[in-house]
Amino acid sequence: MSAKRVVALAGGVGGAKLVYGLAQVLPAGQLTIIGNVADDFTLYGLHISPDLDTVMYTLAGIANPETGWGIAGDSWQMLEMLVRYGEEGWFRLGDRDVATHVLRTHWLAQGVPLTEVTARLTRALGVPHRLLPVTDDPLATMVDTVEYGILPFQEYFVRRRWQPVARRVWFEGAETARMTAEVAQALAEADLVVICPSNPVLSIAPILAVGGVRQALQGRAGRCVAVSPFIGGQAVKGPAAKLMPELGLDISVNGLWNFYAGLVDGLVIDVADTPQSVGEHKAILMTYTLMKTDDDKVRLAKEILDWMETL
Amino acid sequence: MSAKRVVALAGGVGGAKLVYGLAQVLPAGQLTIIGNVADDFTLYGLHISPDLDTVMYTLAGIANPETGWGIAGDSWQMLEMLVRYGEEGWFRLGDRDVATHVLRTHWLAQGVPLTEVTARLTRALGVPHRLLPVTDDPLATMVDTVEYGILPFQEYFVRRRWQPVARRVWFEGAETARMTAEVAQALAEADLVVICPSNPVLSIAPILAVGGVRQALQGRAGRCVAVSPFIGGQAVKGPAAKLMPELGLDISVNGLWNFYAGLVDGLVIDVADTPQSVGEHKAILMTYTLMKTDDDKVRLAKEILDWMETL
Repeated sequence: MSAKRVVALAGGVGGAKLVYGLAQVLPAGQLTIIGNVADDFTLYGLHISPDLDTVMYTLAGIANPETGWGIAGDSWQMLEMLVRYGEEGWFRLGDRDVATHVLRTHWLAQGVPLTEVTARLTRALGVPHRLLPVTDDPLATMVDTVEYGILPFQEYFVRRRWQPVARRVWFEGAETARMTAEVAQALAEADLVVICPSNPVLSIAPILAVGGVRQALQGRAGRCVAVSPFIGGQAVKGPAAKLMPELGLDISVNGLWNFYAGLVDGLVIDVADTPQSVGEHKAILMTYTLMKTDDDKVRLAKEILDWMETL
Repeated sequence: MSAKRVVALAGGVGGAKLVYGLAQVLPAGQLTIIGNVADDFTLYGLHISPDLDTVMYTLAGIANPETGWGIAGDSWQMLEMLVRYGEEGWFRLGDRDVATHVLRTHWLAQGVPLTEVTARLTRALGVPHRLLPVTDDPLATMVDTVEYGILPFQEYFVRRRWQPVARRVWFEGAETARMTAEVAQALAEADLVVICPSNPVLSIAPILAVGGVRQALQGRAGRCVAVSPFIGGQAVKGPAAKLMPELGLDISVNGLWNFYAGLVDGLVIDVADTPQSVGEHKAILMTYTLMKTDDDKVRLAKEILDWMETL
């Protein structure tokens, strides 16, 4: 691998898998992950950043391998006690995990920006790469559903297990949220940008919606590719293949090209997905994108980076 | 036991033992515990009320029998994670215990007074008696020490394990803190008031220091007795026998009479402590005050209540 500076845009579990692969093949200092914060929310006054934490725990080697989120071997004593106090307990707060939320909330209340909070946490966990929240400003994914009307993201995603039918998705605060100086610099200096196989609507769109990000991506000289989160027209995990059609979005390869139009030079898709009516000028890497093992993640990351060199 | 209304003033572990005994012998609705809040403090933004929690967990039957504080069978995953993040971890936050602090902090931030917070928590845990923080106003025990200068209470008590030599103890906020309406009513209606064998300086004095409490106790018609926390001139647990002499306070039976002068009609002391130069008009119950087993607690509670009827 050449000494290029790589930026990855990532949401939660799916994105974190590719980030893990990239982190193994890139030396420290050359990988920066820009993370989604629009699924951040406050529970019992604790500031929870699910996507940042998933990436952080993954890079720290402490992620729960079964769920993809949370910490391996975590316990649920606090949650059980909350339930005993009459709380619903629909959001699975692990005992180790809650330390992250407690510290983050404490530091944020002291005026420490989320970027610095995240840097402290990742540093303490020995993560050699940089994880940047796309913005330090408030940003909140909202989902208007047929069954329940407007739901804050975690109510839709966790509490209702993304079963309601979505009519509209938007990001509250996007009009005023600005990318941080760290994100601006990382994007300006990046040789390669990889949009991870995260949910395009729920994980990547809220990154792109933050003031300055889309322009910064368009203004770059280096390559940018997106990795499709679909395999055979289905999402590996999560609501992408259900949600996007509900919103009238096409989840074919062509649909993904349109979704990322003007931003990407290439698309990485699974061999199970046949591209239809994609213009010849468009670069596509067809490969095996399912990441079950750590070897899968590393192999895919290498393939993508090698391929990007050829674009 | 007659149908008298009993109020107990209690601090932490020692007081909670007698409270447990009183709770067993008094029917629901007849026991009100007024708890110390001057050792409350904020850690990582969480509002912790150690004395209230010790009494609450004891009455709920979930207290850790080995330590006297915390919850039986609790684990330390969150604390270990905090330490992994570089925090000191000197205050032992159990995983179940932290649910209490998280909920309390959350409700306080919503403007719910500590009295109502405490009522919700105790109700949820099935406690049939009423636990009242003496005040909803800020109150903080401070200790001026020879070695470290002025320490907030938990820094002195937990972090430094009460080893520093104390020069002065005071209660920040006592000038403005007022007893709650619930405390005022409980004291006004109480037939009997029992000052539990808690640390007189660190647990009972901060209750008495709250605006209105001393006057309410003095203005009552019913009996009030104090139970000595000393056995053979030693504290069963904690710093009372070390701290009080450091502050020039006499921990003999006579000293305790003086400490509670004007407030109590009688004193319960251990058979190991011989009263010296105590006026004949003063009522003393000499008995076995060590409470090792639940039976000890119930027996002592009964003895005290029966004796108070004779005063």
